[in-house]
Amino acid sequence: MNSFGRIFKITSFGESHGAGIGVVIDGCPAGLALDLEAIQYELDRRKPGQNRLMTQRKESDTFEVLSGLVENVTSGAPMAFLVRNEDQRSTDYAHIAQQFRPSHADYTYFAKYGIRDHRGGGRSSARETIARVIGGAVARQLLAQACGMRFQAWVSAVGQVTWEGRPASEAPSEAGEHSPVSQDSEMVRCPDPVAATQMVSAIDAARKDGDSLGGIISCSIQGVPVGLGEPVFDKVHALLGYAMLGINAVKGFELGSGFAGSQQRGSTHNDAFYTDQDGRTRTRTNNSGGIQGGISNGEEIYFRVAFKPTSTIMKDQESIDDAGESVVLKGKGRHDPCVVPRAVPIVEAMAALVMADLWLRGRGSRV
Amino acid sequence: MNSFGRIFKITSFGESHGAGIGVVIDGCPAGLALDLEAIQYELDRRKPGQNRLMTQRKESDTFEVLSGLVENVTSGAPMAFLVRNEDQRSTDYAHIAQQFRPSHADYTYFAKYGIRDHRGGGRSSARETIARVIGGAVARQLLAQACGMRFQAWVSAVGQVTWEGRPASEAPSEAGEHSPVSQDSEMVRCPDPVAATQMVSAIDAARKDGDSLGGIISCSIQGVPVGLGEPVFDKVHALLGYAMLGINAVKGFELGSGFAGSQQRGSTHNDAFYTDQDGRTRTRTNNSGGIQGGISNGEEIYFRVAFKPTSTIMKDQESIDDAGESVVLKGKGRHDPCVVPRAVPIVEAMAALVMADLWLRGRGSRV
Amino acid sequence: MNSFGRIFKITSFGESHGAGIGVVIDGCPAGLALDLEAIQYELDRRKPGQNRLMTQRKESDTFEVLSGLVENVTSGAPMAFLVRNEDQRSTDYAHIAQQFRPSHADYTYFAKYGIRDHRGGGRSSARETIARVIGGAVARQLLAQACGMRFQAWVSAVGQVTWEGRPASEAPSEAGEHSPVSQDSEMVRCPDPVAATQMVSAIDAARKDGDSLGGIISCSIQGVPVGLGEPVFDKVHALLGYAMLGINAVKGFELGSGFAGSQQRGSTHNDAFYTDQDGRTRTRTNNSGGIQGGISNGEEIYFRVAFKPTSTIMKDQESIDDAGESVVLKGKGRHDPCVVPRAVPIVEAMAALVMADLWLRGRGSRV
Amino acid sequence: MNSFGRIFKITSFGESHGAGIGVVIDGCPAGLALDLEAIQYELDRRKPGQNRLMTQRKESDTFEVLSGLVENVTSGAPMAFLVRNEDQRSTDYAHIAQQFRPSHADYTYFAKYGIRDHRGGGRSSARETIARVIGGAVARQLLAQACGMRFQAWVSAVGQVTWEGRPASEAPSEAGEHSPVSQDSEMVRCPDPVAATQMVSAIDAARKDGDSLGGIISCSIQGVPVGLGEPVFDKVHALLGYAMLGINAVKGFELGSGFAGSQQRGSTHNDAFYTDQDGRTRTRTNNSGGIQGGISNGEEIYFRVAFKPTSTIMKDQESIDDAGESVVLKGKGRHDPCVVPRAVPIVEAMAALVMADLWLRGRGSRV
Repeated sequence: MNSFGRIFKITSFGESHGAGIGVVIDGCPAGLALDLEAIQYELDRRKPGQNRLMTQRKESDTFEVLSGLVENVTSGAPMAFLVRNEDQRSTDYAHIAQQFRPSHADYTYFAKYGIRDHRGGGRSSARETIARVIGGAVARQLLAQACGMRFQAWVSAVGQVTWEGRPASEAPSEAGEHSPVSQDSEMVRCPDPVAATQMVSAIDAARKDGDSLGGIISCSIQGVPVGLGEPVFDKVHALLGYAMLGINAVKGFELGSGFAGSQQRGSTHNDAFYTDQDGRTRTRTNNSGGIQGGISNGEEIYFRVAFKPTSTIMKDQESIDDAGESVVLKGKGRHDPCVVPRAVPIVEAMAALVMADLWLRGRGSRV
Repeated sequence: MNSFGRIFKITSFGESHGAGIGVVIDGCPAGLALDLEAIQYELDRRKPGQNRLMTQRKESDTFEVLSGLVENVTSGAPMAFLVRNEDQRSTDYAHIAQQFRPSHADYTYFAKYGIRDHRGGGRSSARETIARVIGGAVARQLLAQACGMRFQAWVSAVGQVTWEGRPASEAPSEAGEHSPVSQDSEMVRCPDPVAATQMVSAIDAARKDGDSLGGIISCSIQGVPVGLGEPVFDKVHALLGYAMLGINAVKGFELGSGFAGSQQRGSTHNDAFYTDQDGRTRTRTNNSGGIQGGISNGEEIYFRVAFKPTSTIMKDQESIDDAGESVVLKGKGRHDPCVVPRAVPIVEAMAALVMADLWLRGRGSRV
Repeated sequence: MNSFGRIFKITSFGESHGAGIGVVIDGCPAGLALDLEAIQYELDRRKPGQNRLMTQRKESDTFEVLSGLVENVTSGAPMAFLVRNEDQRSTDYAHIAQQFRPSHADYTYFAKYGIRDHRGGGRSSARETIARVIGGAVARQLLAQACGMRFQAWVSAVGQVTWEGRPASEAPSEAGEHSPVSQDSEMVRCPDPVAATQMVSAIDAARKDGDSLGGIISCSIQGVPVGLGEPVFDKVHALLGYAMLGINAVKGFELGSGFAGSQQRGSTHNDAFYTDQDGRTRTRTNNSGGIQGGISNGEEIYFRVAFKPTSTIMKDQESIDDAGESVVLKGKGRHDPCVVPRAVPIVEAMAALVMADLWLRGRGSRV
Repeated sequence: MNSFGRIFKITSFGESHGAGIGVVIDGCPAGLALDLEAIQYELDRRKPGQNRLMTQRKESDTFEVLSGLVENVTSGAPMAFLVRNEDQRSTDYAHIAQQFRPSHADYTYFAKYGIRDHRGGGRSSARETIARVIGGAVARQLLAQACGMRFQAWVSAVGQVTWEGRPASEAPSEAGEHSPVSQDSEMVRCPDPVAATQMVSAIDAARKDGDSLGGIISCSIQGVPVGLGEPVFDKVHALLGYAMLGINAVKGFELGSGFAGSQQRGSTHNDAFYTDQDGRTRTRTNNSGGIQGGISNGEEIYFRVAFKPTSTIMKDQESIDDAGESVVLKGKGRHDPCVVPRAVPIVEAMAALVMADLWLRGRGSRV
């Protein structure tokens, strides 16, 4: 239930208001020299309070390695990491302990399990994604060393502000080393400075209104070997979609030409093959988003992920309590007015988990 | 690799040009009285040659039950079904045995496995979906009897012709019993007669040009119990997305408000709770698409699936052969100029497989 | 439920009195040239009626390949094999359709599923092991070609007749090629002619009495690479034990020194390491049975499997019917008075399935 | 790799000389009120240094709950427990950092992973079983509350001292509550005082010789519902055997009549059915060990587990170092001269894990 992957597998545990968040990483090959600072770097990109666009919960989000490393090299044993919670303020949730927040998981969890974690969001909190970011940081180090695969995500829409461009620089060549983005765009993680400024303004405006925004994250995977993925159910993009749709607030996923591609004709949509000057098989266009028949063709894998606006808002809302009575739910607490900037490292992490698993699974494809 | 589901699990086998296509269904509870005609009904909706919009390959697509039933009642043993291939015409593929068809799986399969099925598309053929349709037909009978869950998909876009409406009738109450759609719309599986006529025209035009179209299928699941789905990775829509993106030619998936919802503000996007006159917890809107925190809230589950235009076209295309040399690939063979009409039962089947598995998994959620 | 293995995985289906028995083999690497006659050879060793010691049910047990091969080479797609039932005689079971046979699965299946296959033993029949023998025959061809691993099982006890020796010849070097055993011993599959004659006599005597015998099968695996197996739960012998105890009528499993070894002291039981003249790490003794810390050390893997006496006997027995009323169950039908001779290829097959899976899993153990 | 179970699943992590040992328990139903003291009670039974028969490593083995409980009630979220290591003394291992201890995992781990944990036994240490004991303690509380299932294991052989009897008292009715055993037998966990005294003497004698002993643990499971287990591969005893053979030092497993039963005839071995005065289906004998056709029949499940003598001894031994050179390995360090007394709670824990998983899986067996 709380595990992801078949060979390279993470198991996530922990709640927003318990002792902390942890992850067990199983199936990572032995002999991988881990850069622990690069893992912390990814956690820092995810953590709250980096700037005014993000929830002001204060967490240092530093991890303890509980197992699996011998002098920072993977031993073949499962790795466990633990990040303790620090700034829990369960009292923030006292006023909603008996109420169901609209479009949150309160009602459905209660209906499913018959139990309510009165201390806060529990497993549905975005703090759980710490487990994924750590797991993904290990996965991308494995892939960077093993085959040079690289991941780069960015914000391509905040509310109605969109930017259709692509980052000027290639995906960074090593885990944790990201090419610097222009100053203003750093805060909102959109490479284009003009669009970034508009996005920041949109978030500021929503925040002042006590409201929230959604957005879109784009992700590019480069250096992908040909032949990853499984033909039928475990197509690369099926697993990427599964991974992305499992991130909080995600409502949509599209690969390559995506929804827009459904409006094209085959004669323009098909990606013609040619042999490049290095003798490699390439395609002239990449509407396929790097995946054909579910299997990587060596081109860039490119996909987009839609996030709904944050459910927590600072406005009064109609709702019910757990006795079914009507209530007016007060806007209170700390939250992100727009989750997409903080979700960028999460998208990269989940993508890395998918690809590491497929890369290891691919070792069994030929005699 | 070729299995889908954790408790209610199907294993698919077979190729387009081998003996046939089959499926093993494991984990179905004992004691389910199966309506075999309803299974055949679903296969008939998927089969080729139903009308001029579809490939003219002739297949009766009738199944043999190999195991698992005692007088048409499930015994708890795995069920196996086999549909033999009849109209294989491997010669259709002779001209491309050494060539890679653009945006097909030829190149990636060859790169992955080092072997080429010279007889045709092998596992990448849409014939493989026979396995899914049979599995899904059993799943929907299970769900219909167990909890009244119902599935209804339809075509909401063909190329640039879109129809944003919803079917007038509810999802049919039993597997195999579908409310009649207006005459013209039956062929293209769009409930709206005006849109349907435009869609048919668009497909006819593409076909005459030797070209192809993509489209969008919408799907509604009704009668869903509250509390299905798992909180973290196995959110209902994550599994639905995984299932849909595993269907040939699918490039995108969105739940509820989807990509468009990412442009809204939280105050308009949130679904307010209320208690209806029967005492049931409901939401005023359903931007959540029936799923909150990854778990069903009892509202209709609603999602959309984007299909690219068919890769096989009747035009000459630039490509290479398996020695890497440039070739002009000739348009030849039988194909669907637009796959979405035939994909409607496949979408329903995959949705039913996801929900049956989650329904069984949900049996373990409370002491 | 009906699948075995993680990467090299078989899914078994079919009943003794249905259409037939089949198996889907998934996860076998592409590019393996299969010797189909060697698969049939293994099936022939398992099939009924080979000699007077075995049930006289007449089955040719020839298989049809439904999928997964291109000119007898694995393509990476799932392989499916089907063996149709021929001599079903459901009427043999009419007299027990409402009765529970002692030490059979009749009562427990009925209690579990609430349904009774009145035609015969259904899934609990030893015919199901056809699926395993086919799967194992593919696995041993994979292992023979990939790393020279070889499997050899034999009967080391029938009732109270035991033979503690080891076969004179090494395990055969290729799947299906078995060194000839001395004439009389062929029938009972014990390499020692003296013991074999005693075993045959014991079975004949039991058969004449309408009674049955148990026995023990020993198995040797040679040519095992160092380093297979997983440290904690998936120790090689844990998986071998799981595999063997899943064979009908098996009640015990022991590795290397086994139960007797529990009576030794560490100083005599420990296997001292040395380096042989070829520079290979070896052990002076092999009480470990080729596995240390759950992982293969390159020595012969050696284990023993205990089978209970066949439950079907030709004597009257006390029992109850499905209404709970006392009945006298009449001895009738066809059966093996001792299953161990026919179980030899099944033991080898299950061992091969375990090792093929571990061999493929081992590909992920190092960067 | 490090997970056990399909629905009720534990994931084990940690090494003997790292931060500690932990376990994630996933799939436990929500709403189970946990008795944390009963979990500690089981850990105390497993911990080192309880008496002179056991290693003198000093560990309090107290756990921290990291997640999954709301006021000691399971919430449906994964539970994580952590036991920190305290008395690690890695220096004890300095002398063997380059040597391979006979019949230990040193050589095979090194061969598999290419890496050596110079600090000690790493994952192969019996400390890892802390994870299993915690998981099993939760499982038995679940089963005790849900269906009254009870587990009781005891030592039935130490070296050549055997006791074939059965405990006078039934299995304790609640997790953690064990009926008091007679005084002397408590130390060695054999219910018979006479045999216990002989066992203690045997261990003392071996210890004085710097040597070690093996032994046998018997286990009884009572209060088992009819119908648990899966027919083909996941027979109850196949999973029990898999679980037991995954415990360090285990070399054999037998159910019910076991190896001895293979010498009987069917007419004496078969367990005749009758209806008892309460109308329950029972068997006159229980050679089946409570399992028929792989499925529980409601009788006591009874099995035996053989442990080899401890590999660590205080005598000089022939071995090699990691360069393949001959060495004389010195006997040094702390160890158990006989592991079986401490392994009793581990056997119970693994049995409980198997049964909890099957009990939850059984929820899906009927419509």
